[in-house]
Amino acid sequence: MISKEMYELGAHSSVIREIFEYAKKRAAVVGRENIFDFSLGNPNIPAPPVVDETIKKLIDTMPSCTLHGYTSAVGDDSVREAIAAFLNETHKTSFRKENFYMTAGAAASLTITLHALAEKDDEVILIAPFFPEYRVFSEGAGMKARVVLSDEKTLLPDCDAIEKAINEHTKAIIVNSPNNPSGVVLGEEEVKKLCAVLEKKQKEFGKPIFLISDEPYRELVYGSATVPYITKYYKNTIVCYSFSKCLSLPGDRIGYILVPDEVEGSREIFTAVCGAGRRLGYVCAPSMYQFVVRECLGKTADLSAYEKNRDLLVSTVERLGFSCAKPDGAFYLFMKSPEEDAGAFCERAKKYELLFVPSDSFGFPGYVRIAYCVSAEMIERSIPAFEKLAKEYF
Amino acid sequence: MISKEMYELGAHSSVIREIFEYAKKRAAVVGRENIFDFSLGNPNIPAPPVVDETIKKLIDTMPSCTLHGYTSAVGDDSVREAIAAFLNETHKTSFRKENFYMTAGAAASLTITLHALAEKDDEVILIAPFFPEYRVFSEGAGMKARVVLSDEKTLLPDCDAIEKAINEHTKAIIVNSPNNPSGVVLGEEEVKKLCAVLEKKQKEFGKPIFLISDEPYRELVYGSATVPYITKYYKNTIVCYSFSKCLSLPGDRIGYILVPDEVEGSREIFTAVCGAGRRLGYVCAPSMYQFVVRECLGKTADLSAYEKNRDLLVSTVERLGFSCAKPDGAFYLFMKSPEEDAGAFCERAKKYELLFVPSDSFGFPGYVRIAYCVSAEMIERSIPAFEKLAKEYF
Repeated sequence: MISKEMYELGAHSSVIREIFEYAKKRAAVVGRENIFDFSLGNPNIPAPPVVDETIKKLIDTMPSCTLHGYTSAVGDDSVREAIAAFLNETHKTSFRKENFYMTAGAAASLTITLHALAEKDDEVILIAPFFPEYRVFSEGAGMKARVVLSDEKTLLPDCDAIEKAINEHTKAIIVNSPNNPSGVVLGEEEVKKLCAVLEKKQKEFGKPIFLISDEPYRELVYGSATVPYITKYYKNTIVCYSFSKCLSLPGDRIGYILVPDEVEGSREIFTAVCGAGRRLGYVCAPSMYQFVVRECLGKTADLSAYEKNRDLLVSTVERLGFSCAKPDGAFYLFMKSPEEDAGAFCERAKKYELLFVPSDSFGFPGYVRIAYCVSAEMIERSIPAFEKLAKEYF
Repeated sequence: MISKEMYELGAHSSVIREIFEYAKKRAAVVGRENIFDFSLGNPNIPAPPVVDETIKKLIDTMPSCTLHGYTSAVGDDSVREAIAAFLNETHKTSFRKENFYMTAGAAASLTITLHALAEKDDEVILIAPFFPEYRVFSEGAGMKARVVLSDEKTLLPDCDAIEKAINEHTKAIIVNSPNNPSGVVLGEEEVKKLCAVLEKKQKEFGKPIFLISDEPYRELVYGSATVPYITKYYKNTIVCYSFSKCLSLPGDRIGYILVPDEVEGSREIFTAVCGAGRRLGYVCAPSMYQFVVRECLGKTADLSAYEKNRDLLVSTVERLGFSCAKPDGAFYLFMKSPEEDAGAFCERAKKYELLFVPSDSFGFPGYVRIAYCVSAEMIERSIPAFEKLAKEYF
């Protein structure tokens, strides 16, 4: 009587959501302060003051019918111009407003892009570990998701395996750096290596392979890590961006798709992006927030708290005998499970009210994701629990 | 190399959009003040002050991470509770928060609902004239759109024709009252008549036929017209609502889907709605605007300007010899074309800088849609043009 597929998607919400619900119930029993919930990737740092100041300023200065009215489907011209100028200044690129399609955040950017590209029998390569919704979005667009495991030691893309996985059906590969769930950042060397493989396979199959760069965590990098701007390394790159994490406004749903001129069939793809946005019911990206991000380009929330959290967590878990992927970015620690079954490890952690996400849902078994977009104070309080958990293994 | 279907959807944007572009170009030639653009359904009345006041208040009082953070996928509990309470108070219904799924506006409500319901070979009945995107959304969900023309005289649904059109594949019918593009409102008698047909056909085929009530114009009714709350007349009603028009914030994208308990398979449908929202990349409805509408339930923009516009336009065109559908609601006048080909009539109107939308794009030839969400002053200035146009025919 209804769509079985949609029912299943609704009924089996993500593992992360299940842990979230468990945390709520458990908090009711033992008290919120006694639960150490590291499961959710929900920024805990306030939006920078400039966001709220800008909203108030726009309300006071812009005509209501412009501020709250429809923009064109691709987004407001002044917004797209400002983003192009900002990126050109920052990355020495040469984008124009015509390359940008404003969206309701990264998930919208990805679904729209995948729908725009998808033809019958197409495949998209996902590099595990990956954000679980990539599979939902790819399959929703009618593409088969082909999973390639990252290098077991470095958690970096295994370029040999990617090369082998690419076939005549490969339409695209999704790259996510800084990575959710691993926190790993692709340096210039890795980007070059990956792009060389893609170039080679493009030639071999005589057709473009699109690199979809999902970049909501671009600004969340720590220490000396930097995130290369991938369009400069590989022509057929389409960028899916969101302001959710850098400006701490994930609920407000604002981002963009960037289809540079140098992408093969750039204008046709852009047109298909417009068609996909239309078909999926997006109409236009939230208008007021388009104007807000125009005024906040280059600004970020105070991300230093994440770095402090990372340092505290990494030093704690390493001191206790755990090991983890090099956590250069995002707000996730990807810690190796001390027993083979990460699910079993997470169950054991629950005894101490520690909530992690087992990595199986990210397509990469044997790890747990520890989200550190939480208060430093909660991390401090959780250290004895980590210590007890460690004692069970080491 | 890309999705042909999405490319076509992007390349052949709606006729309305084409006229919009024509208006921009023409304005550059003869001046904006000399163009009488009646083509766009973009509210020209400012959002009521309470909207902007609420935004400022929320910024000053709510924690940033709640105001701008993710809500759960179905929407914030307090928001859904408030909407249920408001509707129950207004319409003597008995909804609970669990019946509501918050969305990014009416288009999202419709695409998500259609995806949730669609099974192989399903059909959805569209009553012409209809909002052209209904076809795009239905086909996007994999449903065949079966068009049934309204009664030629009254522009009300032709219930006999609807009865004949329903077959074993019919999953749903979309009802839009007040109607875009006709402005026609379904009174209680018409609602009862339509529902009786649906009841009869449900029995005949032994399966539910869902009435999807698309209600963005619910509050925009004039004179003595009222809009019956359809869930009270037909159990299998799913409401797709948007705050775009009543609060004049169409760009901010906020609305909901209401699946009442009495709908057959209500919880399963609600779960499928969650699945469809997830697959289409919606994540959650814009958070801040969820809280804004919670505070603004029952408030509207000052809609009296629309009524004045309607009265002025109707009296003008009728005085000149044109005839139109009974314009009880929305902000559209559906005027009979004085020549058979509405497209040709629109071309002739362009000579006088009058821009209308030919009704063919709404699946109902022989009319033009005149959107009166414009300034009264523009209507005043346009009267001589209407007079010249009328002289060509009468």
